[in-house]
Amino acid sequence: MDVSYEQVVDILKSERVEIEDIAKLAYDLQKPYIPDLTLKEAIDSVKCVLSKREVMNAIMVGAELDSSARENRMKNKTLQAIIEEDAGLFGVDEIVALSICNVYGSIALTNFGYIDKIKPGIIGVLNGDQSRCNVFMDDIVGAIAASAASRLAHRH
Amino acid sequence: MDVSYEQVVDILKSERVEIEDIAKLAYDLQKPYIPDLTLKEAIDSVKCVLSKREVMNAIMVGAELDSSARENRMKNKTLQAIIEEDAGLFGVDEIVALSICNVYGSIALTNFGYIDKIKPGIIGVLNGDQSRCNVFMDDIVGAIAASAASRLAHRH
Amino acid sequence: MDVSYEQVVDILKSERVEIEDIAKLAYDLQKPYIPDLTLKEAIDSVKCVLSKREVMNAIMVGAELDSSARENRMKNKTLQAIIEEDAGLFGVDEIVALSICNVYGSIALTNFGYIDKIKPGIIGVLNGDQSRCNVFMDDIVGAIAASAASRLAHRH
Amino acid sequence: MDVSYEQVVDILKSERVEIEDIAKLAYDLQKPYIPDLTLKEAIDSVKCVLSKREVMNAIMVGAELDSSARENRMKNKTLQAIIEEDAGLFGVDEIVALSICNVYGSIALTNFGYIDKIKPGIIGVLNGDQSRCNVFMDDIVGAIAASAASRLAHRH
Repeated sequence: MDVSYEQVVDILKSERVEIEDIAKLAYDLQKPYIPDLTLKEAIDSVKCVLSKREVMNAIMVGAELDSSARENRMKNKTLQAIIEEDAGLFGVDEIVALSICNVYGSIALTNFGYIDKIKPGIIGVLNGDQSRCNVFMDDIVGAIAASAASRLAHRH
Repeated sequence: MDVSYEQVVDILKSERVEIEDIAKLAYDLQKPYIPDLTLKEAIDSVKCVLSKREVMNAIMVGAELDSSARENRMKNKTLQAIIEEDAGLFGVDEIVALSICNVYGSIALTNFGYIDKIKPGIIGVLNGDQSRCNVFMDDIVGAIAASAASRLAHRH
Repeated sequence: MDVSYEQVVDILKSERVEIEDIAKLAYDLQKPYIPDLTLKEAIDSVKCVLSKREVMNAIMVGAELDSSARENRMKNKTLQAIIEEDAGLFGVDEIVALSICNVYGSIALTNFGYIDKIKPGIIGVLNGDQSRCNVFMDDIVGAIAASAASRLAHRH
Repeated sequence: MDVSYEQVVDILKSERVEIEDIAKLAYDLQKPYIPDLTLKEAIDSVKCVLSKREVMNAIMVGAELDSSARENRMKNKTLQAIIEEDAGLFGVDEIVALSICNVYGSIALTNFGYIDKIKPGIIGVLNGDQSRCNVFMDDIVGAIAASAASRLAHRH
């Protein structure tokens, strides 16, 4: 069994994330280095990242864990509590996100670290939303944006 | 909120994994290089690995995902199916496991790759158990053993 | 300035490594899972891995460090001595090699760990050659083979 | 043969990097989260990171490659040129640096990405120094600071 691109886009939508939101992050990361970069190119780069199996699997796992915590479906109540309070030292969220960046080389990794600290655009929105748990999704979105930006850097 | 060492040992037990099982793997990996190595030292090394926060968090997440798949509790039925069939190209299981090895350096990483391929001892038991889903747990056990072995290598 | 594919093949040749040697390792790794795999496909996969910039850069750095140690050109004589004796806990050689595998996902990482331990074919030849320093090259060759095998797995 | 802590401090000094410079970066990274943090604690954390074998080996390799490029001692003139122009897509410098962060978990990795982009303090000085090649050293210094900061986060 394999996940489809459409399913992954639907998962992102249900997590309130649009491809354009991620593309804007990638665009802002890369614009200083590629002056004639267009948002359209950033969107295409995000779509390309989203079509990789490793990336799709990471998105599914992150979304499952977030929704499981959100709906109080976790069996392990300690894990449930750690994810609910978004403990800064949890680490597994970044690990899953970094597996996306790894595929796109060291620029993706440093871009991710930067974006994870600055929390621009949709990442800030996800991170600041106190009403629902987004522990994995904000890191995953950052990793996709960082990877799409790295892809643009390597292609230009 | 933080997880305790005792909780983690209990999670492993409920996944049918004893510390001694993991220690035997670490012992077998390192014995050729440290002729006077004892099983007691391998057990102590495993206990030390198990007391690291990154490791405890990875164990909790892996066990939660395995039990969730096992009990058909996953919301995403595609992910449920991928984990049930233990798709060889899934990859997130190895990613979570590798986050354990990373802490213990490159010897832990190569030991993990070896053990993941050979599937000795308890890993073979977990992997061959058709009656229940162990997609994450067999990789996590391999990573703990590989890390405990690397720890022994660096200390001797 | 960028390195060319031809330069990289020449560097490998000067380190006594042929593309076919690496392809044989990838073929042996993947044959059990892809019964109709041909050596030609494995060769094409190795060529594809060798044309990635990250991979070419890693090869250049590894070969430079090996030849520098071999010709006693290192400024830091402690580093020179560590590389000459191929200290098992050095670790930087595996790090450079793992940067190749990262691009090809977790199967490449576990394949590398396996091959690094077993030392089949050309890796055993490089590793056993007491007459010249191959600290980085044997790990790099293993990483290319592991990555080419992972690429085959994902494509079939 | 093993390198000593004193040798590593001397290498950093010869690259014009003092422990206090690195500690200031770690302090600035962590101060917002630990209000009563002192520079003394940051210095102790840097010293602790510097005493790890993986870290010492990475420093030696990075300094050797930088000085080799600087003194035009590289055999591979393409590599020499790539390092001299500090090509943004080279990647091996970040790889060696990331091997330091890996030991200290995902917070070290994201801290490194941030610092690598912002280039505060001594990293900006190294990076802006047109008179000598610092391709590896600025990333290594960033990685040590990021790791020391992560260590402080986990201990407080």
